[in-house]
Amino acid sequence: MEETLRQSLLSIVGPESFSEDPEDIVSYARDLWPRTTILARGGTYTSYSSEAILWPKDASQLSRILKLCNEHNLPFVPFGAGSGVCGGTVAIRGGLCIDTKRMNRVLWFDKERGLARVECGINGQILEETLNRNQLTLGHFPSSIYCSTLGGFLAARSAGQLSTKFGKMEDMVSSAEVVLPDGSVVEVGQERPDLLQALVGAEGTLGFFTQATLRVHPLAEERLLRGIKFTDVATGARAIREILHAGIRPAVVRLYDELDTWMALAGGKKEGEPHEKNQILEAIKQRVPQDRLMRAAFSFALQLAPKAGVVADLGPRLLGAGCLLILAFEGKKRLVQAEELAALDIAARLGGKDLGRSPGEAWLQKRYAVSYRLSKVFDAGAFADTMEIAITWNRLMPLYDAVRKALQDEAVVMAHFSHAYHEGCSIYFTFSSSAPDEASSLERYDRIWKRALDAALAVGASTSHHHGIGLLKAQHLRRELGTGGALLDALKHGFDEKQLSNPGKLGFTRTD
Amino acid sequence: MEETLRQSLLSIVGPESFSEDPEDIVSYARDLWPRTTILARGGTYTSYSSEAILWPKDASQLSRILKLCNEHNLPFVPFGAGSGVCGGTVAIRGGLCIDTKRMNRVLWFDKERGLARVECGINGQILEETLNRNQLTLGHFPSSIYCSTLGGFLAARSAGQLSTKFGKMEDMVSSAEVVLPDGSVVEVGQERPDLLQALVGAEGTLGFFTQATLRVHPLAEERLLRGIKFTDVATGARAIREILHAGIRPAVVRLYDELDTWMALAGGKKEGEPHEKNQILEAIKQRVPQDRLMRAAFSFALQLAPKAGVVADLGPRLLGAGCLLILAFEGKKRLVQAEELAALDIAARLGGKDLGRSPGEAWLQKRYAVSYRLSKVFDAGAFADTMEIAITWNRLMPLYDAVRKALQDEAVVMAHFSHAYHEGCSIYFTFSSSAPDEASSLERYDRIWKRALDAALAVGASTSHHHGIGLLKAQHLRRELGTGGALLDALKHGFDEKQLSNPGKLGFTRTD
Repeated sequence: MEETLRQSLLSIVGPESFSEDPEDIVSYARDLWPRTTILARGGTYTSYSSEAILWPKDASQLSRILKLCNEHNLPFVPFGAGSGVCGGTVAIRGGLCIDTKRMNRVLWFDKERGLARVECGINGQILEETLNRNQLTLGHFPSSIYCSTLGGFLAARSAGQLSTKFGKMEDMVSSAEVVLPDGSVVEVGQERPDLLQALVGAEGTLGFFTQATLRVHPLAEERLLRGIKFTDVATGARAIREILHAGIRPAVVRLYDELDTWMALAGGKKEGEPHEKNQILEAIKQRVPQDRLMRAAFSFALQLAPKAGVVADLGPRLLGAGCLLILAFEGKKRLVQAEELAALDIAARLGGKDLGRSPGEAWLQKRYAVSYRLSKVFDAGAFADTMEIAITWNRLMPLYDAVRKALQDEAVVMAHFSHAYHEGCSIYFTFSSSAPDEASSLERYDRIWKRALDAALAVGASTSHHHGIGLLKAQHLRRELGTGGALLDALKHGFDEKQLSNPGKLGFTRTD
Repeated sequence: MEETLRQSLLSIVGPESFSEDPEDIVSYARDLWPRTTILARGGTYTSYSSEAILWPKDASQLSRILKLCNEHNLPFVPFGAGSGVCGGTVAIRGGLCIDTKRMNRVLWFDKERGLARVECGINGQILEETLNRNQLTLGHFPSSIYCSTLGGFLAARSAGQLSTKFGKMEDMVSSAEVVLPDGSVVEVGQERPDLLQALVGAEGTLGFFTQATLRVHPLAEERLLRGIKFTDVATGARAIREILHAGIRPAVVRLYDELDTWMALAGGKKEGEPHEKNQILEAIKQRVPQDRLMRAAFSFALQLAPKAGVVADLGPRLLGAGCLLILAFEGKKRLVQAEELAALDIAARLGGKDLGRSPGEAWLQKRYAVSYRLSKVFDAGAFADTMEIAITWNRLMPLYDAVRKALQDEAVVMAHFSHAYHEGCSIYFTFSSSAPDEASSLERYDRIWKRALDAALAVGASTSHHHGIGLLKAQHLRRELGTGGALLDALKHGFDEKQLSNPGKLGFTRTD
């Protein structure tokens, strides 16, 4: 970096907020994209390094930084907490990594209008706890809540575990302060037409979120959890659809396929507390001791791939695991009781078996644990990833089948259905696989994603539901957008013709 | 128009879909913008005429028309049913008026995914009836439903009477086929980021909607209507807020201020059916015979303005009209019963008096009547208009007071609160006034709008909630958008640099 540029940057943020230290460069050179985890396991930490890390404290500093970058043709990448799993923050053209975490204050909240104004570098859990102390909630509970920021939520159109009731991040935001790629600072709300929605989900390619006004809600008076078992995933999905079309809005909707049910129920025992009578769980526990179950399941991937899928698929079916649906209702006591009864009616009509409250309560207790288990898979020499895609109800089962079929020779695949809406639902696939060495692991990893997304798009699914696009899905996003991508390009052209802002993401290509 | 251009247009749509007849030119030279009604009353029908009217039958024809317009620098204006009240379809630079009403088919509907694909020139009531015949509803009931099109709904971000449950048009649309101003045809859905929301509400300045995929719902099993009287409008508004923050979602929420309550209750008698005991209604009926009430109220505007406001304001208060809140709950029987009980609890705690079902049922029966009454005001030599603006709960009463104060020397003002959301609510003001002649009527009309919108923006309201912007509010919209307007300009620049598509609307200004 030229010395004049360095001095200009230092004069904006001060020496304590500027770093070229190799430790920082390495630390910021990847996020939780499993592909970079495979590389890091092999010792390659800096495939995508920035030249410097900056920690601006507000939109004004950020604006001056971006204007300098434009003058010097220097690319820049936004960074929140680095929990993204699609390579949304990797610096493919070097330049600056701009960490937003010093913008971390709750500026105000107001119960009357149900809004809070928050700086976008705030950690998700800290934001929620701050609101909770004031009897409020954002209603946003991604499994990454401990290691993610509001800016990341907005950048990726994040969804939390209660999205069926509270919506996704794009539904939670009412207006935002954004620093556009040319350094101009704009406040964008939901006017007519609504340009805010064109920025939410743009992953830093059209600007950085610095402040946002969010919808917040009173803490629920009552929460009712319920587990219901269906014979198969198609019937469970139908129950979800009928529940939603009846006007019922559960806070939580999670339907696990056979393998995922087997994992979920086995992991569901509360410590120090006897289980309620639960035939499925007991049946499974008699066969596989709980602690060993996770290892055993993943061992399919480690030792038996590519035929592991067949074994993993058959096992739970032979055990009669069925498919577990977890519902939660929260809000006013009278209303949630009515909702629960109405939902149970629908489930019973479709042959659902009421498992009572324990499966849901067990899930609630461990609801953030799954993300932390994945690293063990990597430690064991294998790899795992998750793919969340959405589709309309009529194509849900074809999508489920198509993706599993596409990966049948490549990975153990399990799935749950955890974000349901009026016209459709998302499927959250988890795949685990392995290969003898790093090169073949990367090859298999890339092949898995290509096959899975090709299969998904062929059935008509979206490229992503809530993890975002990043580098990983950029080309598939462009296929999904089709002719409509021109609108996105027009915005990019208007504010970042030189493609400096988070290069390569969302399929923007260099014009120079 | 040059002969070669005329021949090219004729070759695209055929002679039966092209007109330069003076009768057509006059018919399409205005919509229901009251300002043009004042002009028409004085004999001026063609302040804003087009050179020709075209009726394309699909996106392909429309695309070819727009490409020709671009070649010839000819402006063009989209036209649905002409029910807009802000001059959104007036042709300030001549050119072509493009009527979309031949694109009027329901292409498909699907109960499983709760979606329907519809051509955007379809009439609102015909669309709803088509869905109803198949046990479905769009849930969109604007008072213009008989004389409006889906394209108009999308262009203006229309809201219907059940918007608190079903949302506004921007919530109802899942994807759309749009012909951009340069003639390119794009399908835009709610991908990431979401550019569809940047087109919904753009009033034809960024493209024409030709087809849309809409969310549709099963017809409700039960509908419960309830009237509740509050002592004043602030308490009624507080009840609405608390109801929504409790997670209750009424289909209808309508709170009338004192004058509007007086009008609403007086108009509320069902023909041939005795009223339930209703003290307020009876009190008013004893004083003013129902049929004469409307005339009497408007006579304030005709004869007493500018002091009419004071009289109209005091009258209902002296009569003790109070403020009527109408709620409706619809959906599954068990759920709506629970919602109604929970809402009544909240209302009772705030001193609301339960008036039973009759006020709501009376409203339902006459719910589209009000729009048709307005023309009588013009026949009588006066004028009236409505202004719908939204604001957060904390500023609702200041907005109500500010607008009334701004107009106190100009018009009789009444208001109701009919679209309520998590963070705020809209206010629907009706103002009636008069002036001795056309010139002074126009002057007063313009002054009323400037004062009202200036007052609204000063308090922090939106420029429009669901009528749109048109010519009427273009400058105020730009003030509301502030720095964020640059994003809109970038899209315009990308596809309509020459400002041919619906010139002058949304505050786009010519660059040539």
